Amino acid sequence: MNQQVLIQAHQRIQPFIHNTPVLTSRLLDEIAGAHVYFKCENFQKMGAFKMRGASNAILSLTQEERQKGVVTHSSGNFAQAVALAANQLGVKSYIVMPKNAPQVKKDAVRAYGGEIIESESTPIDREEMADKIRIETGATFLHPSNQDEVIYGNATAAMELLQEHPDLDYLMAPVGGGGLIAGTALAAHYFGNNCKVIGGEPSQADDAFRSLQSGKIEFNDSVNTVADGLRTNLGDRNFPIIQQHVERIILVDEDEIIQAMKLIWERLKIIIEPSCAVPFAALIKERDNFKNKNIGIILSGGNVDVKNLPF
Amino acid sequence: MNQQVLIQAHQRIQPFIHNTPVLTSRLLDEIAGAHVYFKCENFQKMGAFKMRGASNAILSLTQEERQKGVVTHSSGNFAQAVALAANQLGVKSYIVMPKNAPQVKKDAVRAYGGEIIESESTPIDREEMADKIRIETGATFLHPSNQDEVIYGNATAAMELLQEHPDLDYLMAPVGGGGLIAGTALAAHYFGNNCKVIGGEPSQADDAFRSLQSGKIEFNDSVNTVADGLRTNLGDRNFPIIQQHVERIILVDEDEIIQAMKLIWERLKIIIEPSCAVPFAALIKERDNFKNKNIGIILSGGNVDVKNLPF
Repeated sequence: MNQQVLIQAHQRIQPFIHNTPVLTSRLLDEIAGAHVYFKCENFQKMGAFKMRGASNAILSLTQEERQKGVVTHSSGNFAQAVALAANQLGVKSYIVMPKNAPQVKKDAVRAYGGEIIESESTPIDREEMADKIRIETGATFLHPSNQDEVIYGNATAAMELLQEHPDLDYLMAPVGGGGLIAGTALAAHYFGNNCKVIGGEPSQADDAFRSLQSGKIEFNDSVNTVADGLRTNLGDRNFPIIQQHVERIILVDEDEIIQAMKLIWERLKIIIEPSCAVPFAALIKERDNFKNKNIGIILSGGNVDVKNLPF
Repeated sequence: MNQQVLIQAHQRIQPFIHNTPVLTSRLLDEIAGAHVYFKCENFQKMGAFKMRGASNAILSLTQEERQKGVVTHSSGNFAQAVALAANQLGVKSYIVMPKNAPQVKKDAVRAYGGEIIESESTPIDREEMADKIRIETGATFLHPSNQDEVIYGNATAAMELLQEHPDLDYLMAPVGGGGLIAGTALAAHYFGNNCKVIGGEPSQADDAFRSLQSGKIEFNDSVNTVADGLRTNLGDRNFPIIQQHVERIILVDEDEIIQAMKLIWERLKIIIEPSCAVPFAALIKERDNFKNKNIGIILSGGNVDVKNLPF
């Protein structure tokens, strides 16, 4: 692993993704007591940074592999990302989704050209179904967060942000499965100017916080958080990167997440998922530690049911 | 009036406003059957295009006039725009607001540095109070929509959009008090390449539609529309411009407005006011008349209570 790997990943996916805008707000800066640069991956294709990792993973396959397609299991943004990224490249995608996944999510995957295979809803059922398809079709399995090419693709969001703002003191990202924070940490390490990386994580799904403390991968006891994109667990590919390059993880409570989400909606006039608001909630919570610093925040996505908001 | 007036207005206000981004969406293009360029004035300072007109009006005053301040009556975006524009220029602003205006709107005006003077809630009460302040203080009265400098300032949104996309076949804007559509029409006339202007108006507040038919200013019978920014009436300064330069006005129903608003929220991932959605609703309604055309839409503002949405 070196910085060339990340540069190549960025060059590889550039034709297939948006270089998303960076927004700022005087009022949010006042609230945070710092200079905050929001990297708006909610404006990314299919509405989330996952498009970067999925695109890089598929583009890294050989022609022979591409012909056999790709398979993943996800009911969230990665399902849509794989469907769209595969479709853009003329690759067949099999998306394993639980039977009880919301119809709107299934419709989105189909609209992007993915073939949905339904499974029972436990993680093991979903993994087994994906494995079955992999064996039957020869499709390559793509993991939403715990795969090198996915992590490198995710890193490109922070790379673009650092290109625009090379002097960031901190980069902040939410911590779910660990793929985004690991990619962000690699970007900061190779392209930052002494740029530290801080994760934001819900208190209600604090596996990464505890994993950093214990030095081994811990699992979530509960996942009772509004930040539905952050209910997943760290993996063995991203955890070592997080251990090495993430300074620390700040936990935030549910009301802090919802309050931060509402602030971003009202002040930036953009739609973000609850998961997105977690790093900004963490910044507000510990504002005294970030006074007047330049802080980049990865707003990870904007796929939210606007009829069912937490505020 | 000539194009130089508009160029000067733009130069005058440029240091005090944002050149707002233009967004596009493949999916919204498919729905509309056209190429749509959304000029995002919801990202303007204080969250609406009104910042342009207010800034131009205040910057057009003499030093002596500026020293005596400005006064307006508004409970909407123009109140905030005058407060902030005046504040940026070190000018005192008096904002007449009805006693029963929402606290959040009063707070916003105060946060931007405006002095609120409360009045009873009828239009006549508000006008009388503004006139009283004008006489007592010597402040200059600024009208939200029916004043030349305000109209010229409003025109600059469409001017910027035409600079980026000179080949627009149509420009569309919502019609409320008439200040935005009149400015947009002037911009299209002087800077467009045979660019036609279409207004979108709620069926429930159709004064402009009927005014164009009858050839004189008609008044709203009802203002029972979710598009709360469009409940006001045309004025004698903007109506002649609209008569001369607006091709026609398309009426849309409440459910069409709400549906278009939801589409823009979900697809562009941005927060817009209901009023903003009216031109896009008009485009969808008459999509057969705009097939494959290049269409610019002014998204007028994003100040909406996210706790109280119409969908």
